[in-house]
Amino acid sequence: MSHNSFGHLFRVTTWGESHGPAIGCVVDGCPPRLRLSEADIQPWLDRRRPGQSKFTTQRQEPDAVRILSGVFEGQTTGTPIALVIENVDQRSRDYGEIAERFRPGHADLAYELKYGIRDYRGGGRSSARETAMRVAAGAVARAVLGAGVRIRGALVQMGPHRIERGRWDWAAVDENPFFCPDPVAAVAWEEYLSAVRKAGSSCGAVIEVVAEGVPPGLGAPVYGKLDADLAGALMSINAVKGVEIGDGFAVAAMSGAEDADELRMQDGVVAFGSNHAGGILGGISSGQPVVARFVVKPTSSILTPRLSVDRHGREVEVVTKGRHDPCVGIRAVPVGEAMMACVLADHLLRHRAQNPDAPAVARLPRN
Amino acid sequence: MSHNSFGHLFRVTTWGESHGPAIGCVVDGCPPRLRLSEADIQPWLDRRRPGQSKFTTQRQEPDAVRILSGVFEGQTTGTPIALVIENVDQRSRDYGEIAERFRPGHADLAYELKYGIRDYRGGGRSSARETAMRVAAGAVARAVLGAGVRIRGALVQMGPHRIERGRWDWAAVDENPFFCPDPVAAVAWEEYLSAVRKAGSSCGAVIEVVAEGVPPGLGAPVYGKLDADLAGALMSINAVKGVEIGDGFAVAAMSGAEDADELRMQDGVVAFGSNHAGGILGGISSGQPVVARFVVKPTSSILTPRLSVDRHGREVEVVTKGRHDPCVGIRAVPVGEAMMACVLADHLLRHRAQNPDAPAVARLPRN
Amino acid sequence: MSHNSFGHLFRVTTWGESHGPAIGCVVDGCPPRLRLSEADIQPWLDRRRPGQSKFTTQRQEPDAVRILSGVFEGQTTGTPIALVIENVDQRSRDYGEIAERFRPGHADLAYELKYGIRDYRGGGRSSARETAMRVAAGAVARAVLGAGVRIRGALVQMGPHRIERGRWDWAAVDENPFFCPDPVAAVAWEEYLSAVRKAGSSCGAVIEVVAEGVPPGLGAPVYGKLDADLAGALMSINAVKGVEIGDGFAVAAMSGAEDADELRMQDGVVAFGSNHAGGILGGISSGQPVVARFVVKPTSSILTPRLSVDRHGREVEVVTKGRHDPCVGIRAVPVGEAMMACVLADHLLRHRAQNPDAPAVARLPRN
Amino acid sequence: MSHNSFGHLFRVTTWGESHGPAIGCVVDGCPPRLRLSEADIQPWLDRRRPGQSKFTTQRQEPDAVRILSGVFEGQTTGTPIALVIENVDQRSRDYGEIAERFRPGHADLAYELKYGIRDYRGGGRSSARETAMRVAAGAVARAVLGAGVRIRGALVQMGPHRIERGRWDWAAVDENPFFCPDPVAAVAWEEYLSAVRKAGSSCGAVIEVVAEGVPPGLGAPVYGKLDADLAGALMSINAVKGVEIGDGFAVAAMSGAEDADELRMQDGVVAFGSNHAGGILGGISSGQPVVARFVVKPTSSILTPRLSVDRHGREVEVVTKGRHDPCVGIRAVPVGEAMMACVLADHLLRHRAQNPDAPAVARLPRN
Repeated sequence: MSHNSFGHLFRVTTWGESHGPAIGCVVDGCPPRLRLSEADIQPWLDRRRPGQSKFTTQRQEPDAVRILSGVFEGQTTGTPIALVIENVDQRSRDYGEIAERFRPGHADLAYELKYGIRDYRGGGRSSARETAMRVAAGAVARAVLGAGVRIRGALVQMGPHRIERGRWDWAAVDENPFFCPDPVAAVAWEEYLSAVRKAGSSCGAVIEVVAEGVPPGLGAPVYGKLDADLAGALMSINAVKGVEIGDGFAVAAMSGAEDADELRMQDGVVAFGSNHAGGILGGISSGQPVVARFVVKPTSSILTPRLSVDRHGREVEVVTKGRHDPCVGIRAVPVGEAMMACVLADHLLRHRAQNPDAPAVARLPRN
Repeated sequence: MSHNSFGHLFRVTTWGESHGPAIGCVVDGCPPRLRLSEADIQPWLDRRRPGQSKFTTQRQEPDAVRILSGVFEGQTTGTPIALVIENVDQRSRDYGEIAERFRPGHADLAYELKYGIRDYRGGGRSSARETAMRVAAGAVARAVLGAGVRIRGALVQMGPHRIERGRWDWAAVDENPFFCPDPVAAVAWEEYLSAVRKAGSSCGAVIEVVAEGVPPGLGAPVYGKLDADLAGALMSINAVKGVEIGDGFAVAAMSGAEDADELRMQDGVVAFGSNHAGGILGGISSGQPVVARFVVKPTSSILTPRLSVDRHGREVEVVTKGRHDPCVGIRAVPVGEAMMACVLADHLLRHRAQNPDAPAVARLPRN
Repeated sequence: MSHNSFGHLFRVTTWGESHGPAIGCVVDGCPPRLRLSEADIQPWLDRRRPGQSKFTTQRQEPDAVRILSGVFEGQTTGTPIALVIENVDQRSRDYGEIAERFRPGHADLAYELKYGIRDYRGGGRSSARETAMRVAAGAVARAVLGAGVRIRGALVQMGPHRIERGRWDWAAVDENPFFCPDPVAAVAWEEYLSAVRKAGSSCGAVIEVVAEGVPPGLGAPVYGKLDADLAGALMSINAVKGVEIGDGFAVAAMSGAEDADELRMQDGVVAFGSNHAGGILGGISSGQPVVARFVVKPTSSILTPRLSVDRHGREVEVVTKGRHDPCVGIRAVPVGEAMMACVLADHLLRHRAQNPDAPAVARLPRN
Repeated sequence: MSHNSFGHLFRVTTWGESHGPAIGCVVDGCPPRLRLSEADIQPWLDRRRPGQSKFTTQRQEPDAVRILSGVFEGQTTGTPIALVIENVDQRSRDYGEIAERFRPGHADLAYELKYGIRDYRGGGRSSARETAMRVAAGAVARAVLGAGVRIRGALVQMGPHRIERGRWDWAAVDENPFFCPDPVAAVAWEEYLSAVRKAGSSCGAVIEVVAEGVPPGLGAPVYGKLDADLAGALMSINAVKGVEIGDGFAVAAMSGAEDADELRMQDGVVAFGSNHAGGILGGISSGQPVVARFVVKPTSSILTPRLSVDRHGREVEVVTKGRHDPCVGIRAVPVGEAMMACVLADHLLRHRAQNPDAPAVARLPRN
């Protein structure tokens, strides 16, 4: 039982604070003889890196990852992979106020009540900076899953503005600063978010992550459910307040006939008439794409003065200055992908341990 | 790493199939010298028991729980508590069709692809019958949490029909067969669900669970987040497709100023101006009520014929007869409460291990 | 983290007290489609069963095991296997004295100091009765390992009397009441133990367990070492005070040249010149037989009066009457075998998850 | 389930290879507000550091530890503590031979069979260099245990030469290069080991670790036994082949009356007449000193030519040159202490979680 690890057979332990000397992680359980180098990890980190547009924090971090163990002559060895990123731009400033006062909506108060101490510089351990290591671990997870599994994420709602499903274009995702798959929405969002930013305000967002090529059989019937682990993993991302699988909350208003995906055969493999289930039945992957969504709250680091209290129990007012994202949900897209990759890699190993002869596709008859 | 356990320090392992001789669980890690007897557990099971109204399955199960270990002279001993319920009404029938054909929307296909074998009688391990043991374990968790923590659940949406928040009355919950806290809605729901049932159809539902009196400090900063564990626990309930904490998906459309709960002091304890966060900040309880919601899909066990396939890869049609709930979400209310209780009990023990001197309320200054 | 479970992928959780209604276990993680019935488990339990000779406790327990879940139509389903044994001969007696007084050398005092409560009847949870469930779980583990892995145990020392290695005969093990592989020693032991028993005294013993046919590659380099897990598993058996792998403590006096097993090739497979290492190199099985030994202390349940204290801190004298084994080490033989089986099954699954293409024998070149 | 972590609530994950850029560990679960700095860790590392006498490897490593996270303004914060040591003296050499040939008695062959790849430089992950991080983690564990718990280790046997118990002097331990508590033996050992070293040979050793001031109640009745976890932890140290608690294997030849420690009262606290049990009863600490011993085999890195095989299945001869310790057991003394500290810290937190009101000494009546 660890407070800073996730996964079981593919197990990731992260460490580090926003303004400490470095952040890092240990990936334990990675199978041997996979090709892996820093060049396989860096591109994913670059997608998450701050300071790439005016819509994300202006902190300048190259986020250059180093592999310190577990890889030999370009291949994984089966031993723990240690990854480290140095913190470079810990801008010098006076934290006196933030050290004493709790920012509403932040972890400050809860840390104080739990631990009686916290590294208040830039959020310390509760900073979104920790998610860089999730992205790095996710790159290793992709190596475990192999080229047959494709994991992509997109921002599907910014503030009150949702995308049009009919305009979904994966190619568009990398052509705007929002990971938005709807080119029309992306234009509108730019205007919207500029206004939010100028007002010193912030907005929430919804991210969707889709994994294609997932073999059937990942997950377990009761507490090792694939969707339960996904829900826990996505909810563990900073500022997330909700998670959905497949049609999510919309199923409340559906009938059983509408919701249940019908089955047909195609070339000896099960074909589904729809994917309301999001690729998971009874906690186990069915061979359909796995679809998850999560909502990220608007950051509470805003310029509006807010009522609060300080460590001594005195009532105060707080204004949060500094470098912050008006929509932290944007940079959560690669993080969500990474969590999906890690959960799938973990379950792939778990599934293989118990079912070495299971088919890689939804073939029937099974054997 | 166990597929059929949840929790770490308060750890529950369940076993049993719908139509086997019995179902049961082992609760490990319960502190010693708590008063506990079957009479403390049975009332919670009775709330979940099938056959209590025409809106739930007509299977007749007394669900009488027996304590087989871990309790001595009316007190817990600190050793594992084994709980068992005999299955009584495993109605004799011909399962030939269900053994061969996969019911759309059910776990059947995914089990077959994973294991190549399944106990098809009444859903086997994937039957909601397993949730009886969660409710039993939840009763033990309530003993761990003590009388100061109050956990209650309610159905807040049935099919497309939501309750009116302004009419919320906890007393109403036990006065209708739906655990509905809105007496007006309850009347309308009765009519609605009767129609669904008569049509051989089904509908989804949303459940809300609220825990009051939760001490601050439960949870951990990154992967041991209280909300992440809650999300995993609630998503592990059969047929759940989404989980929210506090305002959930609604935060996407809010600004940081609207979302962040302001802080004041009241008698040396932090008082919050609102509870958008659902009682959890940065993964750690803040002292406010913990609020979670989850959506349960409409059962796919319906009378409408559906396209499907069988074990041999042949295309077939499936109609699911038998004893089923038109709205399985109803009986998920006590299950959701139980999962909340188990997660909180687990985190209470975890918090205490690392922070034995932490205050039980959000007192400031802390020490 | 569970106090009453062991193993990770093949995970066993036991419950029950000596004088409660039943004892049981849950085996989680067993692969599907293995043949398993009560008839596969019962014979192993019968070997451990009390009351079979005058040298073991006279408690009469049929130890009839029932499978309550996880097996369907004679095959495992991949879901948790619940096993239960009813306690039958909980002889009625007055426990007043034992309830108050701590027996020297027993767990009584430590339980009191830890929990402030204990089920004192027959040792409660600390009774060797718990080991019946280990033997039952071990039978399931043997099914996982398959017929190619053969696990056998023997008593190699009783009191001060060791066997002669040169007379080791596996066939002799089942022909005396001591699991002694040395037919000559077995005769002498009978006389020795009769005298110990008549004197109301007790003696210790050393057990050796050997697993043949273990595939190479089980274990992990650092904390998941096969020998580390074996040591923990064997030390967890009641009354065990020491564990050795291979030559054990004798290696202290050896030189590197004497200790290191030389390697040759035989038909493409590595052949070893000796087995000082006990089949484990660097924490990983090498393909040689895995050899472990453990020592069981003399039971402190004896007729000799001993100085002690009671719950109230009063100094008293204690004489332990009742049904006890003069040499509890005898019945530890099947328990040691079972623990070896469980550890190997767990590591087989772990190894397979990370290394699906590893060879089943020490073949070179590997691929 | 992690291959490179140990502990549950006080959880240590290590990473790094002998000749990689660095080695490190993450300590998760450390309580907040403990004083901790590099100066608290470095002295323990200095005791283990290579190159301090002619009897240990001549590799020159300053082993300077850096804390990269989890400590703020001189205090632990409750978040993960990352510790790193750079590898400095990775002497350049030709590993061609060792890359291909398996050294008898080494992990080489087992790694090859498991993973099909290994970092052969200096033993890679199986190098004793990993134990530096155990010592560093042990220093953190000592901070958790506090000043009241004193953990000390000593070499009690070198080759065939045992110490005289009657001459045991803790002060002597730091006055000879062997951690020998018997000043007379230390002189003799110097001569003995010089001869071993000059002969290019090696010898085994036995280490004893004693923890005083351990509170009663640490451990759990069945699989969370304190002695089981100690046995696993000590057996996980490189080259260890046996572990004993208290009188260990000697109990085989004892009677129950000789072995069981009698109890008396002294100032309201239980006093024991002896400590054959090594401070653990029924898996739970009794308040007496916890005593464990383990044996370290002679290194097989010796100058004597040995028969072996290579990766291609060819029979070869191997001579191991390089920098090696003639008695690797010496440097295992601080490692054994560190493992004891880590296990006790873990169990202290586990005990506290379930039993917050348990007494810190063996007081009777308990409450």
